[in-house]
Amino acid sequence: MTDPVALTADLIRCPSVTPDDGGALGVLQSLLEGAGFACTRVDRGGISNLYARWGDKGHARTFGFNGHTDVVPVGDVDAWSADPFGAEIRDGIMFGRGATDMKSGVAAFAAAAVDFVRDTPPEGAVVLAITGDEEGDAEHGTVALLDWMAAEGERMSVCLVGEPTCPSEMGEMMKIGRRGSMTAWFTVTGRQGHAAYPHRALNPMPAVARLMDRLASHELDRGTEHFDATTLAVVTIDTGNPATNVIPAQTRAAVNIRFNDAHTGASLSEWLRAEAAKIDAEFGCTTEVRIKISGESFLTPPGALSDLIAGAVEAETGRRPELSTTGGTSDARFVKDHCPVVEFGLVGKTMHQVDENVPVAQIGELRAIYTRILRDYFAT
Amino acid sequence: MTDPVALTADLIRCPSVTPDDGGALGVLQSLLEGAGFACTRVDRGGISNLYARWGDKGHARTFGFNGHTDVVPVGDVDAWSADPFGAEIRDGIMFGRGATDMKSGVAAFAAAAVDFVRDTPPEGAVVLAITGDEEGDAEHGTVALLDWMAAEGERMSVCLVGEPTCPSEMGEMMKIGRRGSMTAWFTVTGRQGHAAYPHRALNPMPAVARLMDRLASHELDRGTEHFDATTLAVVTIDTGNPATNVIPAQTRAAVNIRFNDAHTGASLSEWLRAEAAKIDAEFGCTTEVRIKISGESFLTPPGALSDLIAGAVEAETGRRPELSTTGGTSDARFVKDHCPVVEFGLVGKTMHQVDENVPVAQIGELRAIYTRILRDYFAT
Repeated sequence: MTDPVALTADLIRCPSVTPDDGGALGVLQSLLEGAGFACTRVDRGGISNLYARWGDKGHARTFGFNGHTDVVPVGDVDAWSADPFGAEIRDGIMFGRGATDMKSGVAAFAAAAVDFVRDTPPEGAVVLAITGDEEGDAEHGTVALLDWMAAEGERMSVCLVGEPTCPSEMGEMMKIGRRGSMTAWFTVTGRQGHAAYPHRALNPMPAVARLMDRLASHELDRGTEHFDATTLAVVTIDTGNPATNVIPAQTRAAVNIRFNDAHTGASLSEWLRAEAAKIDAEFGCTTEVRIKISGESFLTPPGALSDLIAGAVEAETGRRPELSTTGGTSDARFVKDHCPVVEFGLVGKTMHQVDENVPVAQIGELRAIYTRILRDYFAT
Repeated sequence: MTDPVALTADLIRCPSVTPDDGGALGVLQSLLEGAGFACTRVDRGGISNLYARWGDKGHARTFGFNGHTDVVPVGDVDAWSADPFGAEIRDGIMFGRGATDMKSGVAAFAAAAVDFVRDTPPEGAVVLAITGDEEGDAEHGTVALLDWMAAEGERMSVCLVGEPTCPSEMGEMMKIGRRGSMTAWFTVTGRQGHAAYPHRALNPMPAVARLMDRLASHELDRGTEHFDATTLAVVTIDTGNPATNVIPAQTRAAVNIRFNDAHTGASLSEWLRAEAAKIDAEFGCTTEVRIKISGESFLTPPGALSDLIAGAVEAETGRRPELSTTGGTSDARFVKDHCPVVEFGLVGKTMHQVDENVPVAQIGELRAIYTRILRDYFAT
């Protein structure tokens, strides 16, 4: 049996901080090629990605796995109690950047897949689409892999993303969708002047204050069947005026919105621009709005795929995972345009933190769950 | 007759950017001592001030003049069409830093005083309290002079501050008071968090936005008998959060208030703190308020002194000056604790600007007005 713990350690020892690969994909490619997977490196814009398939190309029964080997920076290395790229194990816990997010997930799936196709070769195909650009701009990562697959006639019938999904106990949560995410930047322009003569100036500050108050206090919805309520966070207001006797000409603000399926990036953009226009009409200033939609919301409605995953998790852990749509974004937002996609992985508590770590036993549990998912998928 | 134009030029040629004296007070001291004024340099904290008295110390009939020889920096010297310290005259206009604010005013009064006491020695005293620290923190300027005077038994029965007071035409406006000025800095603290999980954070941004909206839209008054309405300007909001997926822990804002005699610095401080406390109660954040009161409002009610000045201005210019309390602050805010004080000077259009300048003829007009004021004061 392939050891997912050793494989996780091998991956952690590759310093693959985005956009560097650090040799991580090579470790996987070597393992997968040895097991009969056809591997292709899809390299774009300085990023390396790995596509691996066992079985027939374009088979109607193709189980896909998506994950990433890149990691976020270690931050203050002196604050770590272990080498962030050392994979040191203390008291049954492995330390290292990527220990939970998500080298253990990739290792668990790769180990499960290699052993599964060798021991019980299925009628169909198993695909791994592993990217080196998830923590960065994600421009040349899973999107590039999916584009390349579409062009080559490669496919996944269903896809499991192996991101950590459990808040504190193994098996308690899987994701069947994600809220969308967007950021809007506002630049409010008035007319500079002396603070003693405000009627001769046009102060943009009251305008930005009221606009941010309105946006922050507006209830966009109360949640939908599968989603939490949409949230809007004012993340910054900046003016940079050091002179208290001067009314500034301009100020800036930004809001971040995490939105459910009651909205789209376009509908929220329209709302934001309308609110800004109202403020301009009230105050006489000019507000420029710049918007970046990082991802639309999506949902893989509860059904065959979620039942398959939840059943396997329950069989292995005794816990029926909650079908959740909480959290930030993941590459599932790209996969959903190609096939049904859900996410399940281990406990994500320490992701992105100093002393990121994973209990060694959890890697084995995860690998057992992934093995059962593959078995159940091809058994039906 | 002493030439106030030549004296203005001599003063402009002294580069007296606060806190430097640049020799300016020496020019005045030499002139005044030559005319029989007893001069004392009151030097405090690196600042030089000049006190000059003709006549008996502490005389019940002492006409006082207050002004400053320090100037604001020249700014972009290449943008000037003349040497800022050259006092060049082109087409009857003298250019230089301090040409209007307020070396011409000091020169006009000094010339008037010197000639007046020589030609028609009055029954009483004439005092000049000239500071080198008006444009800076004003900590060691007129305040130091007034403290010294009180300690020495020196006095002024009335005081005229020679700041430029006319918006566009000579003689159209004098000041009988000034609004107060104060600045409040707010630091709103919440709890940092991920923008995707706002319920786990405590965002200070909506709190600061609502607080600033409330302060800016609150009508403090509609003006009083002699004063314009109190104004509040939000001058800056700063957070400095570059990460749009992060809810910041803290943000800062500042407001500047110019207040009339319906308020005091203390009453407004109480109001600001109460508004901040309301916001804290609504949002659960903690707002720290720091306040600096630069000056309380003050008024020398229309009466003998304002009649004297207005009459002299009208006799010389044909214009009856408006009795105003508009504008920023001046050292009159310190003098008012000691004796009735009003302000009259020339047209202030170019003060603090590039190519600050004064029509040469206006200096002569101002000197004639000041001469008539002295004559009328001692005639009654």
